[in-house]
Amino acid sequence: MAETSIRFGILGCAGIAWKVSRAITFSPNSTLYAVGSRSLDKAEKFAADNGFPPTAKFYDSYEAVHDDPEVDAVYVPLPTSLHVKWAVLAAEKKKHLLLEKPVSLNVAEFDQIIEACEANGVQFMDGTMWMHHPRTAKMKEFLSDSQCFGQLETIHSIFTFSGDEDFLKNDIRVKPDLDGLGALGDLGWYCIRAILWAVDYELPKTVTSLRGAILNEAGVILACGSSLQWEDGKTVTFHCSFLSNLTMDLTLVGTKGTVHVHDFVNPCDEKTSLFSTASKTGFTDFATGWDPLPSKSVVATDLLPQDACMVKEVSRLVESIKEGGSKPESMWPSISRKTQLVLDAVKESIEKGFEPVQVGG
Amino acid sequence: MAETSIRFGILGCAGIAWKVSRAITFSPNSTLYAVGSRSLDKAEKFAADNGFPPTAKFYDSYEAVHDDPEVDAVYVPLPTSLHVKWAVLAAEKKKHLLLEKPVSLNVAEFDQIIEACEANGVQFMDGTMWMHHPRTAKMKEFLSDSQCFGQLETIHSIFTFSGDEDFLKNDIRVKPDLDGLGALGDLGWYCIRAILWAVDYELPKTVTSLRGAILNEAGVILACGSSLQWEDGKTVTFHCSFLSNLTMDLTLVGTKGTVHVHDFVNPCDEKTSLFSTASKTGFTDFATGWDPLPSKSVVATDLLPQDACMVKEVSRLVESIKEGGSKPESMWPSISRKTQLVLDAVKESIEKGFEPVQVGG
Repeated sequence: MAETSIRFGILGCAGIAWKVSRAITFSPNSTLYAVGSRSLDKAEKFAADNGFPPTAKFYDSYEAVHDDPEVDAVYVPLPTSLHVKWAVLAAEKKKHLLLEKPVSLNVAEFDQIIEACEANGVQFMDGTMWMHHPRTAKMKEFLSDSQCFGQLETIHSIFTFSGDEDFLKNDIRVKPDLDGLGALGDLGWYCIRAILWAVDYELPKTVTSLRGAILNEAGVILACGSSLQWEDGKTVTFHCSFLSNLTMDLTLVGTKGTVHVHDFVNPCDEKTSLFSTASKTGFTDFATGWDPLPSKSVVATDLLPQDACMVKEVSRLVESIKEGGSKPESMWPSISRKTQLVLDAVKESIEKGFEPVQVGG
Repeated sequence: MAETSIRFGILGCAGIAWKVSRAITFSPNSTLYAVGSRSLDKAEKFAADNGFPPTAKFYDSYEAVHDDPEVDAVYVPLPTSLHVKWAVLAAEKKKHLLLEKPVSLNVAEFDQIIEACEANGVQFMDGTMWMHHPRTAKMKEFLSDSQCFGQLETIHSIFTFSGDEDFLKNDIRVKPDLDGLGALGDLGWYCIRAILWAVDYELPKTVTSLRGAILNEAGVILACGSSLQWEDGKTVTFHCSFLSNLTMDLTLVGTKGTVHVHDFVNPCDEKTSLFSTASKTGFTDFATGWDPLPSKSVVATDLLPQDACMVKEVSRLVESIKEGGSKPESMWPSISRKTQLVLDAVKESIEKGFEPVQVGG
């Protein structure tokens, strides 16, 4: 363990926690240090199963992780309804926060988390891994190239997977008291984040959800879509669902260029990922084909998968605060909040019978 | 010229007419026989430029084409506002009809065309070429496979191209008195047809256009999008625009499968076209990738490009009527009418401030 390694404590043993544990192990500036569960046996087993070093601690409560003075940062993969409580408590114990998405049930809850982080000078980052993939930066380069891509005109994003009978009955993501935002929080979060990322985080003016949203008996969203409108007239759409085959599309169309990526949240291959670009596309002389043809870009991630890139980045920020006296980077909580604001508007539009809703209004 | 070759007359010398002339030449059961223009010189030049045989006729009016008893079928690439007049006159002269899309300015006009065709026993087909591409049949096979694709859950289609300054000022497709449906008629037509094709031509119940449609000063649509809702709750979306880089997407997501095609209207390569399918997609054991991976299907069209397949099919139907006493195939006018009904509803929804509109209601 390097001198500057950031020590992580993990709250709970959720499914996603094993993935982030692996990422903490891979990242060169972080260490798996502690795990807390309501059951000591579960915590011990989780530590053993997930490559925690022999010196790691396991605790029978989340509080105990917060109370361990050696823990620099906590990763919180708890159900969304528990985020506000445990994230605020962590911040109050001066723990930096890596919080799973969706960050909260609504922006009012999230504001309590941000306030606690600000009052205690701790870094906040949400667990949206693809933001940290080097492909994402490469795509942004293309989008920012006014000669190749021009001005962004429209976006469509899809994130769906097919939940089986057990998932649709028992998973925490279909339970109103646990992850009450359902597919919107679990999948739509990524679509909304991708859309905001593409427009440099300028919030849309209004959100109009699409008729046909599917809710379960308890009122949790299983599938929905929405259109987002900006001040300049730009309209984009997304669709998310627990009821369709695994699909992860992000399509960006500009005045001069087009980008397609079909696995934007989790690449098909952890080590080599693709996206497709086209620029100033026209037809061949006799319209028997396209000229120029779209081209594929390949981005290698041999050294560090996207989840480890995320851990490395939050650890770097925490290190700067601990060692160098830097302030927390405000960009990360700011984009989490904007994502939550749009998500709230999508939900409100569904509740209001698909009427347009002002974002943050 | 084979005994059974269907003789085509062409009304006008529009840009698209050269492409269909080439297709008539390629198709084994059709012949370029005549072309009419308001200018005899233009007609003669068109015939010379487009490989008309030496025996072909050129006329200084459209009526003269209708009056030539040797002409079996007419291809009508005139501006949409002229369709009803010239299509009805053609039918009354017992000419079979290949009519460019959009077929008319609204369904009331189109019904006059259908009535004239029915009264005179002539075949009707619109000029939607991709319907006849063998790739289209291959994709339909996948969509119809309940094991691989399951039940259709959502569709998104995009057709855009970037019109230059001259196009946006002078092209007939931005003129209210010529092609008054603008991008909706020129491009949205294809998206709507693709959506109807995917759902086996079951009409949506309602159409709700998306806020943010862009109209020019004369009120012609330059860009718009819409969502379509079916009785069973399924919602699909499309976007069309004259203001964005050339993009032709059709994305179909089912309970068990996904289909992507990025050049559905005009393949990137006339001879070899692709589409991508995925079925029962999941993650690898440690979620480091997808399993199974999506796969590409390749469809060769070495022998006949899609436009020639279209001409071959309409010629086959005309031949059956001429030689075998068959009745006209009603599927073609029926799907043109359904496409027009949805298109009318999209336009009406825009005009009503993006309110939901009943289709055909």
